[in-house]
Amino acid sequence: MTWINGWNDIMSTSHAAHPDRLLPVDPGTRSIARRLLAHVEDLPVISPHGHLDPAMFVHDEPFADPTTLLITPDHYVTRVLHSAGVDLADLGVGGSDADKQAAWRIFVHHWPMFAGTASGYWLEQEFEHVFDINPDRLATDDADELYAELSEVIARPDFRPRALAEAFGLEVLATTDDPLDDLAHHRTLAEDPEFSPRVLPTFRPDAYTKMYNVGFAENVEKLIDTAGDGQTGYGGYLQALRNRRRYFIDHGATSADHGTHNADAHPLDDAEAQRILDKGRAGTATRAEALAFEANMTYRFAEMSRDDHLVMTLHPGVHRNHSASAFKRFGADTGHDIPFSLDYTTGLQPLLSDFGENPDFHFVLFTMDETVFSRELAPLAGYYPSVYLGAPWWFIDEIDAMNRYRSATTGAAGFSRYSGFIDDTRAYCSIPARHNTSRRVDAAYLARLVGEHRLSEDRAAEIIVDLIDSSPRRVFKL
Amino acid sequence: MTWINGWNDIMSTSHAAHPDRLLPVDPGTRSIARRLLAHVEDLPVISPHGHLDPAMFVHDEPFADPTTLLITPDHYVTRVLHSAGVDLADLGVGGSDADKQAAWRIFVHHWPMFAGTASGYWLEQEFEHVFDINPDRLATDDADELYAELSEVIARPDFRPRALAEAFGLEVLATTDDPLDDLAHHRTLAEDPEFSPRVLPTFRPDAYTKMYNVGFAENVEKLIDTAGDGQTGYGGYLQALRNRRRYFIDHGATSADHGTHNADAHPLDDAEAQRILDKGRAGTATRAEALAFEANMTYRFAEMSRDDHLVMTLHPGVHRNHSASAFKRFGADTGHDIPFSLDYTTGLQPLLSDFGENPDFHFVLFTMDETVFSRELAPLAGYYPSVYLGAPWWFIDEIDAMNRYRSATTGAAGFSRYSGFIDDTRAYCSIPARHNTSRRVDAAYLARLVGEHRLSEDRAAEIIVDLIDSSPRRVFKL
Amino acid sequence: MTWINGWNDIMSTSHAAHPDRLLPVDPGTRSIARRLLAHVEDLPVISPHGHLDPAMFVHDEPFADPTTLLITPDHYVTRVLHSAGVDLADLGVGGSDADKQAAWRIFVHHWPMFAGTASGYWLEQEFEHVFDINPDRLATDDADELYAELSEVIARPDFRPRALAEAFGLEVLATTDDPLDDLAHHRTLAEDPEFSPRVLPTFRPDAYTKMYNVGFAENVEKLIDTAGDGQTGYGGYLQALRNRRRYFIDHGATSADHGTHNADAHPLDDAEAQRILDKGRAGTATRAEALAFEANMTYRFAEMSRDDHLVMTLHPGVHRNHSASAFKRFGADTGHDIPFSLDYTTGLQPLLSDFGENPDFHFVLFTMDETVFSRELAPLAGYYPSVYLGAPWWFIDEIDAMNRYRSATTGAAGFSRYSGFIDDTRAYCSIPARHNTSRRVDAAYLARLVGEHRLSEDRAAEIIVDLIDSSPRRVFKL
Repeated sequence: MTWINGWNDIMSTSHAAHPDRLLPVDPGTRSIARRLLAHVEDLPVISPHGHLDPAMFVHDEPFADPTTLLITPDHYVTRVLHSAGVDLADLGVGGSDADKQAAWRIFVHHWPMFAGTASGYWLEQEFEHVFDINPDRLATDDADELYAELSEVIARPDFRPRALAEAFGLEVLATTDDPLDDLAHHRTLAEDPEFSPRVLPTFRPDAYTKMYNVGFAENVEKLIDTAGDGQTGYGGYLQALRNRRRYFIDHGATSADHGTHNADAHPLDDAEAQRILDKGRAGTATRAEALAFEANMTYRFAEMSRDDHLVMTLHPGVHRNHSASAFKRFGADTGHDIPFSLDYTTGLQPLLSDFGENPDFHFVLFTMDETVFSRELAPLAGYYPSVYLGAPWWFIDEIDAMNRYRSATTGAAGFSRYSGFIDDTRAYCSIPARHNTSRRVDAAYLARLVGEHRLSEDRAAEIIVDLIDSSPRRVFKL
Repeated sequence: MTWINGWNDIMSTSHAAHPDRLLPVDPGTRSIARRLLAHVEDLPVISPHGHLDPAMFVHDEPFADPTTLLITPDHYVTRVLHSAGVDLADLGVGGSDADKQAAWRIFVHHWPMFAGTASGYWLEQEFEHVFDINPDRLATDDADELYAELSEVIARPDFRPRALAEAFGLEVLATTDDPLDDLAHHRTLAEDPEFSPRVLPTFRPDAYTKMYNVGFAENVEKLIDTAGDGQTGYGGYLQALRNRRRYFIDHGATSADHGTHNADAHPLDDAEAQRILDKGRAGTATRAEALAFEANMTYRFAEMSRDDHLVMTLHPGVHRNHSASAFKRFGADTGHDIPFSLDYTTGLQPLLSDFGENPDFHFVLFTMDETVFSRELAPLAGYYPSVYLGAPWWFIDEIDAMNRYRSATTGAAGFSRYSGFIDDTRAYCSIPARHNTSRRVDAAYLARLVGEHRLSEDRAAEIIVDLIDSSPRRVFKL
Repeated sequence: MTWINGWNDIMSTSHAAHPDRLLPVDPGTRSIARRLLAHVEDLPVISPHGHLDPAMFVHDEPFADPTTLLITPDHYVTRVLHSAGVDLADLGVGGSDADKQAAWRIFVHHWPMFAGTASGYWLEQEFEHVFDINPDRLATDDADELYAELSEVIARPDFRPRALAEAFGLEVLATTDDPLDDLAHHRTLAEDPEFSPRVLPTFRPDAYTKMYNVGFAENVEKLIDTAGDGQTGYGGYLQALRNRRRYFIDHGATSADHGTHNADAHPLDDAEAQRILDKGRAGTATRAEALAFEANMTYRFAEMSRDDHLVMTLHPGVHRNHSASAFKRFGADTGHDIPFSLDYTTGLQPLLSDFGENPDFHFVLFTMDETVFSRELAPLAGYYPSVYLGAPWWFIDEIDAMNRYRSATTGAAGFSRYSGFIDDTRAYCSIPARHNTSRRVDAAYLARLVGEHRLSEDRAAEIIVDLIDSSPRRVFKL
């Protein structure tokens, strides 16, 4: 593994190892970018939002096999293969019983499709810098040979989750957790003197607010029973959420994450909220009522954040489980959540009018729709002291999109309203590649501003350290 | 004519002939782009969608005059002149009886307006490479002298349609045809051993699905009478469409093209469809009913494509004939179809849930709204094996927009979900310029990825050949 | 002050003075850009839309102090400070009684936040080229020392408003005025033989068309009483607006400006308009009625422009006074007007169908939503002889966005449909910086087209002069 020694001291024949990868092609600007990158390339990794399982670090067992590590759980990867006609069942998605090595062969066979994609770039970086295998071999070598070689690598003690955390320079890692989770793993890790990364829970209550999803009634009943202080109805529901947030805070959480359907945040009065909640629990709420309730809860969560100071992150605008047939076969999070356009300005107005002027309320807005960056999010973040610009993510955390994000937001909001980089990943071994990518893209962007005499190189050097290191600590209250 | 000998061996004083035109300004990247371009610049032209008249090749008569060849039928050109205050009647639009040479003078007088436009670039390339006339003369020479010179050129035998087809390297050309067309010209051409390009019909049923357009009732009546197998009503209507698709397939068609108002594809049950169809034929359907029927038909056409394997292309989101006064005077397709924003994700969900998982169903999505590329189309094409990313077209087939398209789609969908280049043109002589432009833009884009060490040059060379040559053959089942 | 001698002959240690600032980093392209810039850098300033007070030039008094000159009235600056948690009251916003020097200290303390922003760039340019103070001192020097130094500078006779106008090369400056303004200051300035800039009023009737705003009823009553020719109701209302437009024209106005909520322009019949107007005056109109009335007035103003030839400018799509709490404390125009997405194509169709084909009607469309540039505005301006593409403004008049604007519009609409640069400013001393920025961005953009062999350098030189000088004169009928 070469990661631990930094990226720059490696000379391989693979272009994945080129020290100037992702930097601007213009030689003068590239030199500036190189110098800026040097300030941040070896800084620790701070990951304030992601989807890893904390049990991994508690048990610290070897990863099962290359397919289970790199392919099956990563819907960024499986969706690309699926678009080529591969059956998700053959990749082990949704618990299907696929042959691991056959799935690996499918992946290697389709490797050329990954050219130019974000996933392809991350995978190349992982092969080169984590597994010490030249990624060019994916295009030419025998799949089975690579499988065997990778299997050996991940069986080594220095490839256990904890050892990798150290190798990756992981300082903070937030997970995403159900409000009723007991957070025992987080407690174990926090109390373990041998384990230095901070693994923090994140409060994610979506399953308790979306009455149009299956399981809502059961979830809500269990929530109120467990944590409602004996109250029932809407009052008990709100109280239970407040109590569970407090429990999360007591276990180290600094943020609550909300994947809402749209960006509406209109409050309802209590009677109306109670009325709709009753219908939702009975399974008779209309679509409009369900969305009104969800909008009300977005407002209520902001209200709770004002009081308990959990950072609030919001990422609306995705049609979840778009393919009804695939959802039936494989369940959620299998690569067909598709973004759509929506209106943050109008939707968030009630929430921001009431809580937005408060600098202690941290409200990080994410989007899968680039068009809102210059039109809505930068103007909001450039005014409200509570609003922070979430890093471009999901479909737009790839190299060019990250550059467009900077270009679309900096003129109106500057650099100080940035959330810091978010990897949002289920793919553990992609973490260093993702963070390194963001550092390179920021170096490239800043180098252009310096080259165009819009910024001094000294100031750019301060800014890049702030973006990579100080921003996530400040915004996520770490 | 210099086209036939390739583009690169020409040295003229015109910048339109510069071998590096459209390539990146950075010298290192430009060298890479040059090498990539060399792999594809002389490949044959494959044009899977356009608006030429097949009769042209059957009769093979000389073109009438420069105005009729280059100006009157090309609403890309006439709209620019119109924006300067030129009356479309003076350009012969809509069958108006304009003096050809006077129209030509108007065009030459306004030539400076075309600087920086896609049409201007294509025209320059046509002058330079098709007519062997330095385009700089448009700015300085006498319009009448150029008219006379061009008239002589197009009177030559090597400027007849068939000779040009050979000079242009035309291998496949799809036309756009009414479902009741007898396709006699296509049959003649297919059976002509002297004519090598494949000229294929395309099934375009819009006139039979938009009940808000004039002529709908008559069109539907004729359709059912002609091909409904004796059935009446909605059943006969669907059967007639199926029959005519079969007829098209038997005459070489590989695709059906749909210019819908929006991207909705919600199916209706048969009784409701029958009810609305009756109202549409009686001229009493509401706007909402008309759009619901059109959405239903989008779904039904996908169903038919699943069964008969015609590639389905869709391009919603244009307000046709925007200027009511101009539509009254000049009719349709006269330069004032104006795009608007819409939602592909939600609208197409029923269709894709039912047919989208099928790799044999090829569904090519076009847009005039760039914002859906990264937000909706790349995520759809990066998951559904049926969905292909249509090339940027119409208002966004110009140089910078084509580059933005690559940048917006590649990170999520890679290169393998691309439709291949589509010229969509009514301007025959612009075909080589349009295809050459796309080759140069792709070379420029790929060269940057190579320069940024995101792709090896070897892989980029494979990709550019795939984009230009293999993609359109594969996607359009040629 | 170095401005008066041009920008290029200054060599300072500040990067704000670098002669190549904002030009492309590629050395070859930069050379082209330099040569293009030389054609326009010293041309006079033409400002067809802005928000300065004409009284300033009548009284020609010294500016009060640095804070009142540079901070308090400029909501571009105050919103950035507010986003860092500064209370607007401490900056003197909304008439609050803030300590001037303390406000200045707050600004200097937060100066690093302005890196990369449009406001930051303009301020740097002002320090360097207007006040002759190295802007790097903002980061390192004592705030009080700078305050004292600036106070001395602005007390000098050559820093009075009229002297600055000359130094800035101001030839035309349009203000924005209430329809009932007597325009006495404009008359005074026009009649003053010692004052050469043309200071023209602009008719801005928003306060008389938005019945959802406070004061509407009183405003309308006063309007009809003052100028309704004795008529009452809707007839008197329209007649009063016509009369006041005539009054403005007689005082030099060439344009009328409209900041509508959305882009709808559907006319109402007179009875319906009368009915809604009555409700609006009684304070009982619904939101939908208020918007229908506003849409009707957009149509009516186009009708009036057709008759009296005032240029019509339109800028819809902003949620005004987004923060209810801040609006209550500080009033309007305090930095929280936030854009949202809307549809120009559909909304403007009735207006354009009736008036759009008329080349004497000049209709300049602005937007805060970049996405409409390629999708809607360029196609509209590339067809309708009345439609002009407003310069990118407000949140998108920063450097990268101006470049994206050119890239998004030129392919479809060319350069000839451009409004000319609009500074839209309340910050007098930023005028040269803003205009200089647009000249540099245009030079950079055109240089790339030349470098890519899409345009000859000679033609680019003609175009840049047209963009900077001829376009605003032509479009705004100056």
